[in-house]
Amino acid sequence: MKGKTIPLILILGLAAGAAWGKEDVMNRARGIFKPIPAKAPAMKDNPANPARVELGRMLYFDPRLSASHLISCNTCHNVGLGGTDLLETSIGHGWQKGPRNSPTVLNAVYNIAQFWDGRAEDLAAQAKGPVQASVEMNNKPENLVATLKSIPGYIPIFKKSFPGEADPVTFDNVAKAIEVFEATLVTPDAPFDKYLKGNRKALSAAEEQGLTLFLDKGCVACHSGINVGGTGYFPFGVKEDPGPEIRPVDDTGRYKVTSTAADKYVFRSPSLRNVAITMPYFHSGKVWNLNDAVKIMGSAQLGIKITDDDAAKITSFLTTLTGKQPKVMHPVLPPNSDTTPRPVTN
Amino acid sequence: MKGKTIPLILILGLAAGAAWGKEDVMNRARGIFKPIPAKAPAMKDNPANPARVELGRMLYFDPRLSASHLISCNTCHNVGLGGTDLLETSIGHGWQKGPRNSPTVLNAVYNIAQFWDGRAEDLAAQAKGPVQASVEMNNKPENLVATLKSIPGYIPIFKKSFPGEADPVTFDNVAKAIEVFEATLVTPDAPFDKYLKGNRKALSAAEEQGLTLFLDKGCVACHSGINVGGTGYFPFGVKEDPGPEIRPVDDTGRYKVTSTAADKYVFRSPSLRNVAITMPYFHSGKVWNLNDAVKIMGSAQLGIKITDDDAAKITSFLTTLTGKQPKVMHPVLPPNSDTTPRPVTN
Repeated sequence: MKGKTIPLILILGLAAGAAWGKEDVMNRARGIFKPIPAKAPAMKDNPANPARVELGRMLYFDPRLSASHLISCNTCHNVGLGGTDLLETSIGHGWQKGPRNSPTVLNAVYNIAQFWDGRAEDLAAQAKGPVQASVEMNNKPENLVATLKSIPGYIPIFKKSFPGEADPVTFDNVAKAIEVFEATLVTPDAPFDKYLKGNRKALSAAEEQGLTLFLDKGCVACHSGINVGGTGYFPFGVKEDPGPEIRPVDDTGRYKVTSTAADKYVFRSPSLRNVAITMPYFHSGKVWNLNDAVKIMGSAQLGIKITDDDAAKITSFLTTLTGKQPKVMHPVLPPNSDTTPRPVTN
Repeated sequence: MKGKTIPLILILGLAAGAAWGKEDVMNRARGIFKPIPAKAPAMKDNPANPARVELGRMLYFDPRLSASHLISCNTCHNVGLGGTDLLETSIGHGWQKGPRNSPTVLNAVYNIAQFWDGRAEDLAAQAKGPVQASVEMNNKPENLVATLKSIPGYIPIFKKSFPGEADPVTFDNVAKAIEVFEATLVTPDAPFDKYLKGNRKALSAAEEQGLTLFLDKGCVACHSGINVGGTGYFPFGVKEDPGPEIRPVDDTGRYKVTSTAADKYVFRSPSLRNVAITMPYFHSGKVWNLNDAVKIMGSAQLGIKITDDDAAKITSFLTTLTGKQPKVMHPVLPPNSDTTPRPVTN
């Protein structure tokens, strides 16, 4: 059997390899992208158990993670709104506006790192950021831990989530619990996933043409893998500065993390999963229309003018990346006690 | 059989009626309170159907009801936090602070009217308030309707919710859908409900003593019925001004609604359902400890000094009013379209 198969593959390979344009687009796509796996991936040094996922869900929705007791993870990463807040940039403590567009939490587990500049290596590290950021939750780890310890209903679930730990209510464990919960927030079964699994009818003719353009124009250079992006760091404006309206001069991206000149205006490429429902676009959130965003990517990143017709096709392909949204039960949170630190709202 | 029963009841009645103190406390309670019914009550002129309840749930959680697209009904009436926000007074658009403590949405359907001053006759009328209040959602009905009409995913569910209506996406229907959803947010099966249904063991000895004190001291004058309150309007400070710290001078309560001198500092009595988990207390939200609130009620409303021991017993009775919290699935909300009005965040 094996001996028979090899020559066939060789023949097919030679035929397809004759020209890019002639290789079957589905086969090309399968070499570049992967469907969302059915099962949440395991986290490094953070084994999931049902209690830990449940605790993560509670913490994710608990506004008492913030100093004001008003802002939860779900405020800016709303599981009902594609895992984001549909705002240009997020609004946090004291109605301050954050510097960048809120990235979606959905499928974030498959990104190479977290935040637009990749400054957090994983979801647990990420979770610690907004809690402490003065323009977001404006809290302090010690105040958060004191708050959680003051809420009697949280103690048993922390114990169950982190068995064997003498003092499980820690900032690290808060982040770990949120991480395993967030790892469950994936959106499988998008039309494109079905296509990657071999169902050619999952994409319409226009959508498949859009995919072909996406491959041929070079979009895949930054947008590949399970997440159709989120795999690496790239300058925004490889070929052409998109202009200060879209790429504000002050936000130098990864340069702020690495202080390396080559990292000026470098960002982690965003996943394009669910991109059609997570407007506005780019780290600045300045572009609301997906078609416009596609054209801007053409000029800024590829140095080409994408025609209206091609942009429409690419956009129609991008809509096939909208997957089955997670169904999340809103948690019933344990009540305050008399010793719970008061919200700080000023 | 019947002939035999009557004399027995008479004998019992005479024995119990000899003095208040000797009548069985469970029987007394049953004459004053009612358990939370198992089924959501029907709304006047607003028949529930599954689509309408589902639409109400979506709208309740949709921050696009607010001008900023950041604040939903659930922000201040968090179904996971006893139906409130656990803040002194709520925070709304632009981080403005509202004038009064957010009343719980849980069991609100059983209140005589809505808001602390009863200015909304029902939950549908109430729902329209925060949407338009400049310190809350700061939206305009016409902008909200334009927003909802711009979201393609909302149209079919509005049609299904309001069958036969040519133009179902209206501000009135938004309020109606929210009302039928909120009518489902009830908390049955509190220990006190079980007690009212005849299970004497549902209350501990101290809790039952607290109930007796609650009846004997006169708390029931304002806190009776299904909701243990919420049945009528009463001055805050019947016997003694609780002081400007607790009853701010500027907030004259129902007087602002009726302009009647007798309504100065009059408020709708709050339901005491879930009171142990919905701190802080009073319309001003100035008191965080339930025991303290009980004592303040004693002096302000009844002109008596409630001892530490009695206050502790009353408080322990009040904890038996915490019912089974509703389990609510966080909705997956339909995405924006290109014509969706942009959030206004300034």
